[in-house]
Amino acid sequence: MSKPLILVTNDDGMFAPGIKALIEVAKEFGEVVVVAPDSPQSGQGHAITISKPLRINKVDVFDDVVAYECSGTPVDCVKLAKSIILKDRNIDLCLSGINHGSNASINIIYSGTMSAAMEASVEGIPSIGLSSMDYSFEADFTAPKFFARKIIKYAFENGFGEASLLNVNIPALPIDKIQGIKICHQADGNWTQEFIESKDPRGESYYWMTGEFKLETHDEDSDIFALKNGYVSVVPSMHDLTHYEAIDDLKKLEKSINGIS
Amino acid sequence: MSKPLILVTNDDGMFAPGIKALIEVAKEFGEVVVVAPDSPQSGQGHAITISKPLRINKVDVFDDVVAYECSGTPVDCVKLAKSIILKDRNIDLCLSGINHGSNASINIIYSGTMSAAMEASVEGIPSIGLSSMDYSFEADFTAPKFFARKIIKYAFENGFGEASLLNVNIPALPIDKIQGIKICHQADGNWTQEFIESKDPRGESYYWMTGEFKLETHDEDSDIFALKNGYVSVVPSMHDLTHYEAIDDLKKLEKSINGIS
Repeated sequence: MSKPLILVTNDDGMFAPGIKALIEVAKEFGEVVVVAPDSPQSGQGHAITISKPLRINKVDVFDDVVAYECSGTPVDCVKLAKSIILKDRNIDLCLSGINHGSNASINIIYSGTMSAAMEASVEGIPSIGLSSMDYSFEADFTAPKFFARKIIKYAFENGFGEASLLNVNIPALPIDKIQGIKICHQADGNWTQEFIESKDPRGESYYWMTGEFKLETHDEDSDIFALKNGYVSVVPSMHDLTHYEAIDDLKKLEKSINGIS
Repeated sequence: MSKPLILVTNDDGMFAPGIKALIEVAKEFGEVVVVAPDSPQSGQGHAITISKPLRINKVDVFDDVVAYECSGTPVDCVKLAKSIILKDRNIDLCLSGINHGSNASINIIYSGTMSAAMEASVEGIPSIGLSSMDYSFEADFTAPKFFARKIIKYAFENGFGEASLLNVNIPALPIDKIQGIKICHQADGNWTQEFIESKDPRGESYYWMTGEFKLETHDEDSDIFALKNGYVSVVPSMHDLTHYEAIDDLKKLEKSINGIS
């Protein structure tokens, strides 16, 4: 039996320490191909490039691992990997990250790392996005690598059940202070105080995005609660955004319009 | 009682016919403020601008309506509207569009129009994203305006129930051929054959995104089915991406890792 084929991507590009750590773990499980952006793409969400062409360059960055950089967004990278670079091959797993920062709660929708992972799951590829809550370039990846290894091992042995996408966040703690992992749901939060206003040399205003994360509810089954209590959070996630519980009530809208149109 | 405050945005910018049509309808219901991108932003998904500053310019484009163009993505526009332009005011409704093209099925995750609407709903603002399936610049907006008016009227009179975000797509049909509206769920589909490869004048390859939409299942309760049968599709949508049904099964992962770490 051939080795599993693992696609590794991220949103920070080839020179982020997190992708190197992830490749080291991925290599233990199969053949690794890296397709990552050629420039930092944090906060790119599910953006795709439709108004200009994309480029792919093979690069020699990692030992024993074939790697390509791509001129687009993280989602473009996954699309190019699937349609061009690994065309006609079956990708067994996509790993995205390890991001530096939080992809927990509402951050999943802004995250290029998670959007790349989600794009793979849209394509039918089981996929894991990983992020370390340690924002620094010098972050210690011992704990993230340890838990990434455990989760990937489980995925190859058992699959993910009904899910095809996991959002994994690892607290910024030494490995012996981490309590374990928790399967959670996405916490209900958002960002407030989002811009710093300043003046350019011509006296014109400009606005730089910043913000403070605000939790809406304190829910013990949420990813934010798990992380605050020293657990690795694992949220099974999906790209079907339908609010199913709201459908029945909205049938009234259907009736009111169809009855009078 | 003061008039409702309605934020109008889109992903195609101020000069798209769709936003003009939407403003005309919105004005019937309250005070309209427009905040839209200063350049086309199709396919920007939930991208935000974090590595450079943003600009806002007041512009005189629409009769009797205050409008601002913003240098960022559709999501940036909503964030700037909430935090800067309409700071300290309560936004009663956000309308995004009317987009030219389909935001049905998986297209919701790539759509700048729908991501702007989703951002408003994250901020607690009831929000409707609208798209006409007629891709042409000369699209007839009679039917989209008719149904936008009906849905907005319902929203102000009844609310959306549990939902705070609606994804509305209008088939490219004359109004008398449209069968009514259907409350649906997001169809299970994706894109295949996604790139055209070509050579630049130096002989180097480049890749232009294209693709063919492929439906995974033919489900009569889906938005694609509704649109194919001449209905306006309305999908209540949400930003909680948790796959709740998958949580129980994944507790095995939690046990397997916590038991041995």
